[in-house]
Amino acid sequence: MLHIVLKRKCKESLGMGKIYTAAMIVIGNEILSGRTQDKNINYVAVKMVECGVALKEVRVIPDIEDVIIRTVNEMRSAFDYVFTSGGIGPTHDDITSETIAKAFDVEWRSDARAYQILSDHYGAEEFSLARQKMAMIPVGADLIPNPVSAAPGFNIGNVYVMAGVPRIFQAMVDHVAAGLKGGDIVQSRTVLSNHAESVIAEGLGIVNDKYPTVDIGSYPHFKEGKLGVNVVLRSSDVTSLDGAEQDVKVLVGKKTL
Amino acid sequence: MLHIVLKRKCKESLGMGKIYTAAMIVIGNEILSGRTQDKNINYVAVKMVECGVALKEVRVIPDIEDVIIRTVNEMRSAFDYVFTSGGIGPTHDDITSETIAKAFDVEWRSDARAYQILSDHYGAEEFSLARQKMAMIPVGADLIPNPVSAAPGFNIGNVYVMAGVPRIFQAMVDHVAAGLKGGDIVQSRTVLSNHAESVIAEGLGIVNDKYPTVDIGSYPHFKEGKLGVNVVLRSSDVTSLDGAEQDVKVLVGKKTL
Repeated sequence: MLHIVLKRKCKESLGMGKIYTAAMIVIGNEILSGRTQDKNINYVAVKMVECGVALKEVRVIPDIEDVIIRTVNEMRSAFDYVFTSGGIGPTHDDITSETIAKAFDVEWRSDARAYQILSDHYGAEEFSLARQKMAMIPVGADLIPNPVSAAPGFNIGNVYVMAGVPRIFQAMVDHVAAGLKGGDIVQSRTVLSNHAESVIAEGLGIVNDKYPTVDIGSYPHFKEGKLGVNVVLRSSDVTSLDGAEQDVKVLVGKKTL
Repeated sequence: MLHIVLKRKCKESLGMGKIYTAAMIVIGNEILSGRTQDKNINYVAVKMVECGVALKEVRVIPDIEDVIIRTVNEMRSAFDYVFTSGGIGPTHDDITSETIAKAFDVEWRSDARAYQILSDHYGAEEFSLARQKMAMIPVGADLIPNPVSAAPGFNIGNVYVMAGVPRIFQAMVDHVAAGLKGGDIVQSRTVLSNHAESVIAEGLGIVNDKYPTVDIGSYPHFKEGKLGVNVVLRSSDVTSLDGAEQDVKVLVGKKTL
């Protein structure tokens, strides 16, 4: 039985009761070709729970200009926040930054702040043309610091454009999350059951109907060759959550169901 | 330097030169809430390369009926194959099967074949109502066998609906892939570079322009505190691939660039 109360790690919400939503766009042929296993989706997912923001959708798309533009424009109008990972490096296949400028229909230009950061990092002699490309961002964007390798991400409108390398991505997400407005924090409880999912299914349905503000998920797994179930209860309404948790504990504690 | 020649593991293509495309839909609140790290995307991605099918997009969406319907209908008209994972178990939150029937505008009914498989697996006495729900599939669908826990997935039109538990999902994907038509197999070569990405960027751009049939990606990483780069070349045109690989090897072999 896990029981952790999450505390806010982000900015407090101003509009009480508002639900804040987010989406993530993973830009990268390397995930779609199977070369790389994504590690960034889960990082954003966990961080959004801590911020009181509901991650509603994730898309993994290739490094193709019109696909990026279509996806960014669709998602930035549908969700409060959009996070992207990948494609902001110095090589020919790094087209995210320029493409985001096109999606917002603004100029893509060398940014004096980014240029200074990169110039300081590399030194005048090593600051090649390819590296200077990383100073180019859409006009009107704010920088997201990169404590690992200097080249910044950026934020324009409700879109946060970050690097794909997990260590850099995570540092950028931490920075962004610290300033993000979120709603009520969703708490979760996990109840472990050794019964098969199909045995507790009917009882779970009843608990689910009894507590409409609690989202109850049931996740089967294998342990030592046996099927078991994690029942996960999620809600920002702690009283209902406690009641539902109690009912599920009684349910899975029964010898016969 | 890795150099593996991929051989076809799926059905041979009939229409030579045709490009086959696929998309994946991960249906599950547990991924979006950060509770679970997805392991199925990478499995499909690798399998599609072996089949000569290009995985073009992945979406992670919640267990919400209208989102599932919209996403399935959008993707099944845009791609040759659509794979879904998750939501076909016996509990109240398993709505994928019924929802896919709605997306195809067909009835959702108990299937005699699935009923028999489940009845044999559980035995008459243990075959509860919740378990009987797993025999319900859209009318006109074919079954996808589940060698792990019996409850089948199904295939309707170009959509393949499979379980979310990785062990079951992977067995189902293996079964489906064995019968899938694909195009030419994309081969890949990886060249490791100790130069920073920004150092080889210009040279890579030149190689990229020289070989238009080769897709060249550059993926920075950290090893022992130092940035390095994997340069990945991908093409079904092996002659061009060999040429581009040779050029990249010369590029990364240079002491100064």
